[in-house]
Amino acid sequence: MDFSSKLLENAVNEMSQLPGIGKRTALRLVLHMLKQPERQTEELSHALLQLRGAVQFCKKCHNISDTEFCEICTNPKRDSSLVCVVEDIRDVMAIENTGQYRGLYHVLGGKISPIEGMGPQDLTIASLVNKIRQGEVKELILALSSTMEGDTTNFYIFKQIEGMEVRTSTIARGIAVGDELEYADEVTLGRSILNRVPFEGTFNTH
Amino acid sequence: MDFSSKLLENAVNEMSQLPGIGKRTALRLVLHMLKQPERQTEELSHALLQLRGAVQFCKKCHNISDTEFCEICTNPKRDSSLVCVVEDIRDVMAIENTGQYRGLYHVLGGKISPIEGMGPQDLTIASLVNKIRQGEVKELILALSSTMEGDTTNFYIFKQIEGMEVRTSTIARGIAVGDELEYADEVTLGRSILNRVPFEGTFNTH
Repeated sequence: MDFSSKLLENAVNEMSQLPGIGKRTALRLVLHMLKQPERQTEELSHALLQLRGAVQFCKKCHNISDTEFCEICTNPKRDSSLVCVVEDIRDVMAIENTGQYRGLYHVLGGKISPIEGMGPQDLTIASLVNKIRQGEVKELILALSSTMEGDTTNFYIFKQIEGMEVRTSTIARGIAVGDELEYADEVTLGRSILNRVPFEGTFNTH
Repeated sequence: MDFSSKLLENAVNEMSQLPGIGKRTALRLVLHMLKQPERQTEELSHALLQLRGAVQFCKKCHNISDTEFCEICTNPKRDSSLVCVVEDIRDVMAIENTGQYRGLYHVLGGKISPIEGMGPQDLTIASLVNKIRQGEVKELILALSSTMEGDTTNFYIFKQIEGMEVRTSTIARGIAVGDELEYADEVTLGRSILNRVPFEGTFNTH
């Protein structure tokens, strides 16, 4: 692209470093900012700088937090004997939005993936194993995505805590509520039949 | 969404003010920044602040510029008797990328659109009319998009400069190079037949 302004070119180049934002989109966004009051660009820049400079991660569950320990871990109403292991901060938000879970979380920060150079030492697995060794956790819910990397990570964690006094479970896989059976993939449909639940048990989910 | 960090919430809210960026995308972008070195967020923020604070528009053609008059208007090799009227800075970039145009530009800053509350006084039409009245411009190329708003704006400009000594032209509409005739819309195909050009005239476009 042929920019007539170095300042514009620089802003577009920086913006297009973000994932999924190409040069054209970056240009559109930057030109939009030029049409808005200067205050708006200032607020965006300051919000980003402030977050990046002051962000903390909860020392217990590794979720993003403005304080040393996050609101979930410090909430006395939450069941600290139940820990749900997730990949990412966004998974915590997704589960919290359901309003169905009253336990704590443990954010791994990714999955074991040799291709992406992610080994167990890059994740918060050691801290998780430590937590379980201390004996407060009664049940560990493995809620990683059901990909090869997710399965590998699940298995690695399972091996690490073998013999410790903790139950492990994994979230139910099956046909999404409202989905038609005929369009479901075979693996999901197969698992949903194998892992069927007593009919009475489904009442409270409505 | 249920954020566990006010700083994160604030950054996501500011980011999602941008057009086409929803809350989910904003969250993805912001979490990406957290995984990158702090320097990257700083560079982005500074580039945006710098652009927004120091941006200028060329006093002659209203294109974005780092100086009082842009590089195109101050280039002695460009033909200042030829002015191409476009809506937007991006149109200048698109035409410059073709490498086919050696005249100057005039950036209107939009189109006349009563629905969006854009009247002639919101555009740089007065400055264009002034430029033509001074007599340096021999040909005005109207290169607005062929929508109702574009046609209205073309017609308004045409009326304003009626009687002045300037030729007006408009960019050719037709079937795109490489496109199949059978998939072209009727209006475009119709115009491309009415406005056919001598066969010899097409050689230099290849």
